[in-house]
Amino acid sequence: MFSDLDFEKGNGLIPVIAQDAETKEVLMQAYTDLEAFQLSQKTGEAHYYSRSKDRIWKKGESSGNVQKIKAIYVDCDNDSLLYVVEQVGEAACHMGYRSCYFRKLVDDKLVIQGAPLFDPEKVYRS
Amino acid sequence: MFSDLDFEKGNGLIPVIAQDAETKEVLMQAYTDLEAFQLSQKTGEAHYYSRSKDRIWKKGESSGNVQKIKAIYVDCDNDSLLYVVEQVGEAACHMGYRSCYFRKLVDDKLVIQGAPLFDPEKVYRS
Repeated sequence: MFSDLDFEKGNGLIPVIAQDAETKEVLMQAYTDLEAFQLSQKTGEAHYYSRSKDRIWKKGESSGNVQKIKAIYVDCDNDSLLYVVEQVGEAACHMGYRSCYFRKLVDDKLVIQGAPLFDPEKVYRS
Repeated sequence: MFSDLDFEKGNGLIPVIAQDAETKEVLMQAYTDLEAFQLSQKTGEAHYYSRSKDRIWKKGESSGNVQKIKAIYVDCDNDSLLYVVEQVGEAACHMGYRSCYFRKLVDDKLVIQGAPLFDPEKVYRS
């Protein structure tokens, strides 16, 4: 399994960009450690390392909105990853929007683009 | 000027994704501190913070391949940025390729996609 990545600069973590395979939208950016990267390769579903939870999480473990990895790209410095994914459930953001980048900076204010595709309170209610 | 970003989690730095405005390719990922972010907003050209050089750099300061920012998006947690850019000179990668993600992981090996658009030894020769 490929593991020639430079985790040192980021204290064990590397940023991962998830891009929609079809629309090419940038859906989200998260982090991975070596174990989450290997799980992603092995299962074909995106796993990340959550800095706030301090553990590996499979994207969609709560919401069901998993990411099926179609391709993995490694950057020129081996310290950043691009996952081209099929986003199950349409929305990647935990706030219900398709992309985590749903706010555009316009005249020094953040302007929400589009509408949420699901209600986070319903999806994440335990 | 907008500055409501969470720089704490990343020790003063936030990842920035540069995406081509026209083709939607992910060109590169780098980091910004508050000052580089403000310079980017003010000038409309992407400035980053280089961890290896330990200073702010304007993308294209050596190569001439500057990035004209068309839009800035802020993610749901205020700790990741997406710059939609016009990439002057076609190539964003210091190795001459259009995107820094020019290597695809196929069967545990990195396979180069496409060809470089410029010769780094000529562009960066001082």
